[in-house]
Amino acid sequence: MASRLIAVESADDPRIAEFRDIRERDLTGRQNRFIAEGSVVLRMLVEANRSGRFAVEKVLLLRNRVDGIAAILEGLPDSVPVYVAEAQVLDRIVGFHLHRGVLALGRREVAEIDLIERLPECSLVLVGCGISNHDNAGSMFRNAAAFKADAVFLDETSCDPLYRKALRVSVGSVLSVPYERKGTALDVLTRLAVNGFAIWTLSPRGETDIREIPPTSRMALVVGTEGEGLPPAVLERFCSARIPQSEELDSLNVATATGIALFAMSSAAKLI
Amino acid sequence: MASRLIAVESADDPRIAEFRDIRERDLTGRQNRFIAEGSVVLRMLVEANRSGRFAVEKVLLLRNRVDGIAAILEGLPDSVPVYVAEAQVLDRIVGFHLHRGVLALGRREVAEIDLIERLPECSLVLVGCGISNHDNAGSMFRNAAAFKADAVFLDETSCDPLYRKALRVSVGSVLSVPYERKGTALDVLTRLAVNGFAIWTLSPRGETDIREIPPTSRMALVVGTEGEGLPPAVLERFCSARIPQSEELDSLNVATATGIALFAMSSAAKLI
Repeated sequence: MASRLIAVESADDPRIAEFRDIRERDLTGRQNRFIAEGSVVLRMLVEANRSGRFAVEKVLLLRNRVDGIAAILEGLPDSVPVYVAEAQVLDRIVGFHLHRGVLALGRREVAEIDLIERLPECSLVLVGCGISNHDNAGSMFRNAAAFKADAVFLDETSCDPLYRKALRVSVGSVLSVPYERKGTALDVLTRLAVNGFAIWTLSPRGETDIREIPPTSRMALVVGTEGEGLPPAVLERFCSARIPQSEELDSLNVATATGIALFAMSSAAKLI
Repeated sequence: MASRLIAVESADDPRIAEFRDIRERDLTGRQNRFIAEGSVVLRMLVEANRSGRFAVEKVLLLRNRVDGIAAILEGLPDSVPVYVAEAQVLDRIVGFHLHRGVLALGRREVAEIDLIERLPECSLVLVGCGISNHDNAGSMFRNAAAFKADAVFLDETSCDPLYRKALRVSVGSVLSVPYERKGTALDVLTRLAVNGFAIWTLSPRGETDIREIPPTSRMALVVGTEGEGLPPAVLERFCSARIPQSEELDSLNVATATGIALFAMSSAAKLI
């Protein structure tokens, strides 16, 4: 391992330019590139690199983290450069104190084509509409992975789940759960309905108790943004479900509500 | 309303000293005082003020927010001063850009004495051990309120849920759900067990599927910190439950896990 480490002595080194000031930047839009942060996400990225959906382009580490993640680094192709820096240099590169000390630059390969076509006959999917908060986007993927959802669909107004913070909150699940992000909410749901999915929107005023959703072979759970919820055009057209709860309170936060609803639907489908 | 507004022209005004640099300060420890932020939390504080558990000492508002929350302000006792400031002054007081523009100084009245003694014969309570993350503490209260838990117990190593960010994340539920924060985890659980509570610790390796917990009149759900989980001394002594989920993943985050487990136990107890 030691032989492949490339020391970086200056924050201006052009070889690590993509890691500069990462808090202010979002690489995802322009270049299909993204920053993976922390050893857990790096491990997921190395695994995803094998499957061909994502690639690791380079790694940048705090020197004293190298030994701790040696097992993960062994899974990297030889062609991937691994840069190391001391804390002072690393902090100057990224623009803040990066206590985790593990970064990688990833690349999204060709987008999933016809994800719906490739879903199994029995499947549970999660759909997010207008999910602009990175924490919520990340939590949705983490919950989808935990409860064995087959895919996540995001409408075009949702944020890119590969954004650094969303990816971190997802504990890397954005790299393991197949997803697609395109079209309006209504487009996405219509495509799913045409493909045999029972569509269940989640809303505090939903008609069916989430514990009483009849299991079907293909089910989609649809969640909206906190506050505004799902647009009326979506709520009117499909079945709606609610999580029973105290009437005195604001609804649950979107991450927790999604987790509970997926837990209930995954239970109904006997996936867990 | 206009007649009771007190204009603040300078960030150095001693009358609003408690709101200065609130991001760096934690009033909860020393003085039983706390900062309530945002209109929803202010509304809960005004309600709690009526019940006598908490008091509102003063309010500080961005001038252009006054009209929007007039209905909430009407519930304030006449003795509570309401300060208003323009955005520039307010930002200088608090030390950052406060886009919500609604702050209040609250005071915790005498701590709950013998909270356990006052719980109803049928009750569901939530116990947090070592919950040091303010977001997680806040989420626990929000979930407890949503699923009608009767009380929250925190061990002495957990953070104070009145801390500004925890209170905000709880959407004010810290002010409505009775709670106690003292003693070691083992002390708290032993007291609950002596009082007839079935104790269920939550752990990824718990023995009983959370969907199969037998309902009893008194139930306590116990959650630990993310990462380390509950201490072995606690896990060994009580029944344990798990949320069924994919084995490939890190466990759910503590907020979501708590929400799901409370949902399941509240369902079993027929509270929802």
